[in-house]
Parts: sequence; structure tokens; C-alpha cells
Amino acid sequence: MRFSRKPTGRRFFELFAEIGANIGGSVEVLGQFVRAPVEQRADLAQRMRALEHAGDNATHAVIEHLDRSFVTPFDREDIYRLAGRLDDVVDHMDAAVDLATLYQLDAFPPGVDAQVDLLCQAAQLTAEAMPRLAAPQTLTAYWVEINELENKADQVHRRLLSVLFDGRRDALEVMKLKDVVDELESAADAFEHVADVVHTIAVKES
Amino acid sequence: MRFSRKPTGRRFFELFAEIGANIGGSVEVLGQFVRAPVEQRADLAQRMRALEHAGDNATHAVIEHLDRSFVTPFDREDIYRLAGRLDDVVDHMDAAVDLATLYQLDAFPPGVDAQVDLLCQAAQLTAEAMPRLAAPQTLTAYWVEINELENKADQVHRRLLSVLFDGRRDALEVMKLKDVVDELESAADAFEHVADVVHTIAVKES
Amino acid sequence: MRFSRKPTGRRFFELFAEIGANIGGSVEVLGQFVRAPVEQRADLAQRMRALEHAGDNATHAVIEHLDRSFVTPFDREDIYRLAGRLDDVVDHMDAAVDLATLYQLDAFPPGVDAQVDLLCQAAQLTAEAMPRLAAPQTLTAYWVEINELENKADQVHRRLLSVLFDGRRDALEVMKLKDVVDELESAADAFEHVADVVHTIAVKES
Repeated sequence: MRFSRKPTGRRFFELFAEIGANIGGSVEVLGQFVRAPVEQRADLAQRMRALEHAGDNATHAVIEHLDRSFVTPFDREDIYRLAGRLDDVVDHMDAAVDLATLYQLDAFPPGVDAQVDLLCQAAQLTAEAMPRLAAPQTLTAYWVEINELENKADQVHRRLLSVLFDGRRDALEVMKLKDVVDELESAADAFEHVADVVHTIAVKES
Repeated sequence: MRFSRKPTGRRFFELFAEIGANIGGSVEVLGQFVRAPVEQRADLAQRMRALEHAGDNATHAVIEHLDRSFVTPFDREDIYRLAGRLDDVVDHMDAAVDLATLYQLDAFPPGVDAQVDLLCQAAQLTAEAMPRLAAPQTLTAYWVEINELENKADQVHRRLLSVLFDGRRDALEVMKLKDVVDELESAADAFEHVADVVHTIAVKES
Repeated sequence: MRFSRKPTGRRFFELFAEIGANIGGSVEVLGQFVRAPVEQRADLAQRMRALEHAGDNATHAVIEHLDRSFVTPFDREDIYRLAGRLDDVVDHMDAAVDLATLYQLDAFPPGVDAQVDLLCQAAQLTAEAMPRLAAPQTLTAYWVEINELENKADQVHRRLLSVLFDGRRDALEVMKLKDVVDELESAADAFEHVADVVHTIAVKES
């Protein structure tokens, strides 16, 4: 069965590998964005938007290929769901960048670096996992590590909130910063949801 | 197969058409609410609550019919999920109206009109799609258009946030308004989740 | 079929009963936390964290048992999903406690008691339902009651919001309290999502 999966699913695996690589590119732009001087942010936001569109196109390519395929390597609804969850990752990173630009934030509080760092690690694990979808049972370590990263991201996020509320910022500033760091936390959650779909696929195959 | 679907599924399709029409009614009340003078809002909030209850009853009718049906036109869990996601749409619109009433908001910021307008378009597409569920493959255009509307709603929502934070409102006022426009954004998302379930059904059938 | 389910599924049912009991313990600590004098909160937060870890371990035990089981009492993905949704319940209660501790909140507004009270009722219904998963069709009353509790929790939550915004608190204080009561509301939603998975299982079996 695993023997026959490659030919029927090759195009899906290629597209998911492409989406994984696109997530890797997006998280890199995000990292540059939170470290860049304010005057460079508009450029980086535009690059993020371009990556978000590229991700959308790859997602639609998956769905179109699904509509045209008679045989699929996994259940149709799981392919569909995986594409959707991968799309969410970039959406949340793009939202963080877009809100930070709209709100004309001066500087990010310390702790955002740590958040973005964890997103980088999750992106790398995800990009490495996507080309191995043909053998989902081999992805247990990926799934466990993503869950651990999400737990760490949760901790970092809450510590960040306590910094935001330490009384040195006015309420409107806190609200704007909170919107951005909440989107980054949602991106960490989104990586976990991707891993959950991968695990569901592996569970069905086992 | 499509031939035999009609008789077994007729009651489901009737109920979903009814729920679609109820969503149409709800969005209309929402539109009146955001444009109405403050003294008329309580009445409109009550009408919205009544529509929300009617939606709940139709959702329960779907579930009860599901429990009693031996043969169903789609997978049981998809019928169940579709009913749930449709219910969410009205829940979020009702929440927006309820919060605006509780918070005794004076006026909605410009941009809320555009948000509600997009919800009206999504509601109309959804109401038109529901009676055609018997042939889910014909609903591709519906699904694509809902996704485009959600993207537009996202943009409108973010521009609205930047207006809220332009410094002319105090923080508590911003928080209240943000709660309401976030619920409207969640309603736009909820329309997309409905379309996603419809697409999953179509994907399984293809 | 129901005859043969017990032997194959016994370990799953034991684990879910254990998770249900753990949720019961967590909600009890939550109740003590919101009523405790500030100096006792750190201890209770630590106990909550321990219960959250115990829940994580039980969730992983379910997933490991799933990976090792050839025959399962329900669809693999539903067992996986149920474990995940049960985990969310304690996650949200732990988040509420963690945020209240981080933010060094003085006192909870009236209404939080009512929120926690509804969570207690939902926890009790859930703990009673878990050992009866072998016959999911008997759990209709559980599912209906959880939905009613969630509706009540929603009302209590919105009334609480209107209290928070009554103008007697400054904006930063409102934001902190809102974060906590929103996590409690998410816990109520999480109980509903558990019940939804149980209902999906029952729907498939019917």
C-alpha cells in the first residue's frame, strides 16, 4: 500500500512540500519585520503579503487537484483540512505584520523575539515534515516536538502579557501590542493544528 | 445516486433551506440595528433574539431528524457539522447586537456599515446555496465567493481597528466597540466555515 | 456489536473516566481559587498546574493506546478528537488561574462565582458521562444539558462584561479581568465541544 501511494499522491506531496517551504519563507520575513527599523517595515509587510498570496495559490492548487483526482493518498477531507490548517499559519503571521503596520507600533516589547524564535523552530519542523507525508507514521517525533513548542509558546505569550500590563504603557498601547502578540500566539496554535491533522492521518493509517 | 438522494434527504434539505432563510432575516435585523437611532435598538435586539431562538429550534430539528433517519443524503457527521456551523453565524450576529445593547454604545464607527454589507452578501449567497445542497458539486462558485467576501471582510475589519485606535476615543470605548466589530468579523468567519463544510461534502461526493 | 465493544474498549473507557475525574478535580481547585484570599492563590495555582499535567499525561496515554490498538470501540479520529477536546477544558481553566496570578488581580468581580458554578455543573455532567461512553446513545440528556449550561454561561459572561465596563474600573484593570473571564467562558465552550464529539460518536452509532 505504501508502495502504491507515491505515484497516486506525488502531486499532493509536492504541493504540501511547497507550502511548507512557503511557511519557512514567511517566518523569516516575520523575524526580519520584528527586528527592523520602523522605516523598513512597509517593505517587509509587502513581502509578507506576497508570501500570503503564494500560500493561498498553493492551497487552491491542492483543492483543484483534489477535485480532479480519482485516487488520493489519504482521505479527501484530511487533505482538504491539512491545506486549510497550513493556510491559517501564514494568515496569522500576516495578520500580526498587518496590525503592527496599521497601528504604527514604535517598538515590540522584549519577549516578541522569543515568540518569533519558537515560530521559526515550528516552521522548520513543519517544512521538514511535509515532504515526508507519504509515510505519516514516521512523523511522531514531529508531532511531539510541535506540541512541546506550543507549550513553550504559551508560556512565553503569558509572560509577555504580564510585561505589557506592568503599568508602564497606556491602555491603548497595551491593546495594540496585545492584538499583535495574540496573533503570533494564534500562529503557534495553528502549527499545532497542522500537526494534529497529520497525526489524525497517521492514526487512520496505523 | 443523485436520483435517490432527493427522497431520502428531502426533509434535511427543507430544514437547511429554512435555516438559510432565517440567516437572511437575521442579517436584515442586524443592518437595521446598526443604522437605527438608539431608542429603537432594544426592539431590534429582541427581534434578533427571536431569530436566534428560531435558528436554534431548526438546528435541533435537524439533529432530531438525523437521530430518527436510517438513510441520510450525506455522512451523518457532515449534516451535524453543517447545522452547527450555520448556528454559529446567527450566534455571532446576536452576540454583536447583545453586546452593543449591554454596552449602551452611542454610535458605530464608520466602517461597520461596510462590515454589515459584506455579511448581507454572504447571507444571501448562503441562503441561495442551502436549497441546492442536493447537488453539492454545483456549489463551487458559492464557496469561492464566500471566501472572497471573507477576505474583504478581513480587510474592512482591520481598517476599522485602525480607525478605533486613531486616538480620538478613550480606551474603554475602544474596547467596547472592538468587542462588537470582532463579533461581526467572527460572523464573517462563520460564513466561511459553513462554506468549508459544504465544500467537504462536495469533495467526498466527487 | 455492543456486546463486543466492552473488551476491546475497556482501557479507553477507563482512561476517559480518569480524565473526567481529573476535570472534576480541576474545577474544584478553580472554585477554591476564585474564593481564596490573595495569599493562598499561588498554592492553588500550583495545584491547578499539577492537575493540568495529569490531564496531559492521560491524554497522551489515550493516544499511545490508540497507536497500539488494532481494534477500537469508535472511529480512531473520534477517540483522538475527544481526548483533545477534554484537554482543552483544563487548559482554559489553568489559563484563567495563571493569568489571574500573573496579573496579580485583587478581587474578582461579582458574577465570576456564577461562572465557576456553571463550570462545576458542566464538569459533574461530563465526569458522569465519561464512564458511560460504551453506550453513547444513552448520553442524549448529557448533551442537551451541557448545551443549556453553555447558553446560561454565555448570558452570565455577557452580564459580567457589562459590569466590568460600568465605569468604576480603569481600562487596564478591565483588560486584565476580561482576559480571565474570557478564559472561563472558553472553558464553558470547551465543555460544549466535548459534548459535540460525544454526540458525533452517538450519531455515527445510531
